[in-house]
Amino acid sequence: MLKPVDDRLVETLRTELPGLSIGTPGAAYLEEPRGRYKGAGGVLVKPTSTSEVATILRLCNAAGVGVLPYGGGTGLVGGQIIEDGPAAVIVSLEKMTALRAVTGHVLEIEAGATLQAAQEAAESAGRLFPLSIASQGSARIGGVLATNAGGVNVLRYGNARELCLGIEAVLADGTVISGLRHLRKDNTGYDLKDLLIGSEGTLGIITAATLRLFPRPAAVGTAMMVVESPAAALELLELAEARMPGCVSAFELISGQGLRFLDAAGPEVHQPFAARPDWSVLIEIGLPEGLGPEDALTGLFEAAGDLVSDGVIASSESQRAQMWTLRESLPEANKRIGSISSHDISLPLPKLAQFIEEAQAALAELGDLRINCFGHVGDGNLHFNAFPAEGRDRKEYESLRRAIPETVYDLVDRFGGSISAEHGIGRLKVEDLERYGDPGKLAAMRAIKSALDPKGILNPGAVLAER
Amino acid sequence: MLKPVDDRLVETLRTELPGLSIGTPGAAYLEEPRGRYKGAGGVLVKPTSTSEVATILRLCNAAGVGVLPYGGGTGLVGGQIIEDGPAAVIVSLEKMTALRAVTGHVLEIEAGATLQAAQEAAESAGRLFPLSIASQGSARIGGVLATNAGGVNVLRYGNARELCLGIEAVLADGTVISGLRHLRKDNTGYDLKDLLIGSEGTLGIITAATLRLFPRPAAVGTAMMVVESPAAALELLELAEARMPGCVSAFELISGQGLRFLDAAGPEVHQPFAARPDWSVLIEIGLPEGLGPEDALTGLFEAAGDLVSDGVIASSESQRAQMWTLRESLPEANKRIGSISSHDISLPLPKLAQFIEEAQAALAELGDLRINCFGHVGDGNLHFNAFPAEGRDRKEYESLRRAIPETVYDLVDRFGGSISAEHGIGRLKVEDLERYGDPGKLAAMRAIKSALDPKGILNPGAVLAER
Repeated sequence: MLKPVDDRLVETLRTELPGLSIGTPGAAYLEEPRGRYKGAGGVLVKPTSTSEVATILRLCNAAGVGVLPYGGGTGLVGGQIIEDGPAAVIVSLEKMTALRAVTGHVLEIEAGATLQAAQEAAESAGRLFPLSIASQGSARIGGVLATNAGGVNVLRYGNARELCLGIEAVLADGTVISGLRHLRKDNTGYDLKDLLIGSEGTLGIITAATLRLFPRPAAVGTAMMVVESPAAALELLELAEARMPGCVSAFELISGQGLRFLDAAGPEVHQPFAARPDWSVLIEIGLPEGLGPEDALTGLFEAAGDLVSDGVIASSESQRAQMWTLRESLPEANKRIGSISSHDISLPLPKLAQFIEEAQAALAELGDLRINCFGHVGDGNLHFNAFPAEGRDRKEYESLRRAIPETVYDLVDRFGGSISAEHGIGRLKVEDLERYGDPGKLAAMRAIKSALDPKGILNPGAVLAER
Repeated sequence: MLKPVDDRLVETLRTELPGLSIGTPGAAYLEEPRGRYKGAGGVLVKPTSTSEVATILRLCNAAGVGVLPYGGGTGLVGGQIIEDGPAAVIVSLEKMTALRAVTGHVLEIEAGATLQAAQEAAESAGRLFPLSIASQGSARIGGVLATNAGGVNVLRYGNARELCLGIEAVLADGTVISGLRHLRKDNTGYDLKDLLIGSEGTLGIITAATLRLFPRPAAVGTAMMVVESPAAALELLELAEARMPGCVSAFELISGQGLRFLDAAGPEVHQPFAARPDWSVLIEIGLPEGLGPEDALTGLFEAAGDLVSDGVIASSESQRAQMWTLRESLPEANKRIGSISSHDISLPLPKLAQFIEEAQAALAELGDLRINCFGHVGDGNLHFNAFPAEGRDRKEYESLRRAIPETVYDLVDRFGGSISAEHGIGRLKVEDLERYGDPGKLAAMRAIKSALDPKGILNPGAVLAER
């Protein structure tokens, strides 16, 4: 059983680390973007080096006090908020933002740097760090890795996991793992990097990382195309990848519901199609020299035949930006409308279209709902969110708060999908993981957690249910 | 302390699994490609299903008997050979070869299937499974994943790890992990897949996997180009990737020494350059529609200017095959010449050329040696192998058997490289891992090993030193 952080531990921290910033967490550390969780407080520390993080963990572990690793606070599943239980030490990496090294292929950066800072450092070196998510201005590299963030470019470049070559991390007892390799190939023992990535701060605190950089595509093309259905969108993806293998960097599904939400609630964006199409896609390609992106997209449009009924190809950087602004405004429009239940799920591609049909039908049986289904369809990743019918308030749907996710996740499970494609488990989905997770995997996860963090101090209550 | 397999365990296996093939391992199971290790024997079982594997492990674990997971036997670091210690149960997956499912994006296949069978299944579905290694006709998927195999296409498509979406595996106590997801994105708990991949059979036995399939490039181009030095080769790679980002699938460095070994010892191959160049590269590209590979390679050749002094672009499939045959004959020529010491290493790309210079100089100080330095230079992966001077026998170099690898690995370590880029640790590099590995990482590896395999039955003596 963990103990609450007390004056004695604070005193010990002050003695061993005289320069350490120690204080009371302000409101910003106790809130999360969707307002579902409210932090209980505790003590906030802001280490400035890996060795300080190691000392903090060693002392907390010795005292049996919980530790909450804190990045940018942008997670959507409550992984960064402790609502109850013994007060913990919140370890924010915000002072560890150094860019340690940049080469043509690798960025070595501390975990407190924002994702945007990493992207900008890559750009300054004439390279691309392709990970891109809506919260990149605030999300910090440590959190991005701890949650294995995804976003819009996974199709071509992979998740955070695949974009990270190595990490430096501190385990519960203060052991430092120094794995900042600048290597693409390194088969020397167990893959601790990938074990820590996606463990949501429950196995260690990532303090720095080496990130893969890519050459920037010689030319980028962006288009929006109207399709009849999600099935047609997937056929179009297939066609695009057959014509331009490895060059399709984003393929986003947009539903008419999402466009109508934008019309009704804003933010104000430029909509390329006067009549809001039921289904459209945003496609982005990056090409080698010698191929023009507008030609390539026109060629795709023509080859698509009946699959695509209308389309707009961006002919300038500002048109391209408009398309992305539309896409990236969808979550804000959702927020303004106010969802009853949101689901970050993934499906095997061949089953995705059928899933959407069945899930919409199943939810329609539950009640009068609006569904905004959109997302990174090229990765099989959907944001499948349920909203009140027009003119109704979400309070009227209290009785469905549990039934909606249960219906969606049961179906996801039956289709071989994932109940958390890119946001993670955090505290929101702990019970869902117990329910839908593979028992063998859960048993192994508990064994690993016990081995690396025997007192359970790291992010207590996240990912694995406390027993 | 493990016990040797005895009649009682064999009897229990026969009783619980009446149909199980149980016998004495023939010579094929006790040898490895380079003849460095000689297996001690034991009992050979050939399960036909995952549940049989689970029963075997449960019984061996209860009896405290060691288990040697066996794939195709092609590993180069002795991971598949137990030379001494208590006799173990060799679990060969050769009867588990079923292709369970193929979709446009995923191959679900049992671990006993050969890599070549997986490639062929992908090809039958009009897709590409890009992992390619010299031993693909014999290497089995389970071993390929357990060792995180690399090969010639890592540059574009990644290692075995990045090509695997999910695994089914059996842990030491018989627990089955069912993780055969057909998903690109799935953030539901710890990444056990990647923990098992690369663990060389010491944490579990992989029984099946889901593998990523790719669209085949619209057109493939292959060329060999003569460069002045490894530094020039890397500049050429940079140029190629800038012009064709994401389209360069292989970039192999070939040394004049390797070409002269082919001349002297065979196998007989077509050599494109009459005077054997000191350094050349084999480059392969896969392009989107609308770009001709010969044009693209000619364009690269012209843009390269002084960087490339001569070049041949394959103008037919048979010319392309000739180039690859030359590349893939290099290990056989090495074998015929007979190396003193071989090193599968990787370096950060910006330091690779300097490493080659310094390593050659350091070995020259040790004695009169010939170095064949070649490999997947695009990934920073070199096969840096030392041979006797012409006319001399490797027996004359007995006294250098330890000094050569030590010199190479010390330098690799100093340059931030890896002492095992793609072959793994096996039994060959256990001491090297102890010496060069990060202490924090090694401690965490031991904790995980103890948690998942408390009796240490799985591949005893591999990867981690026994204590």
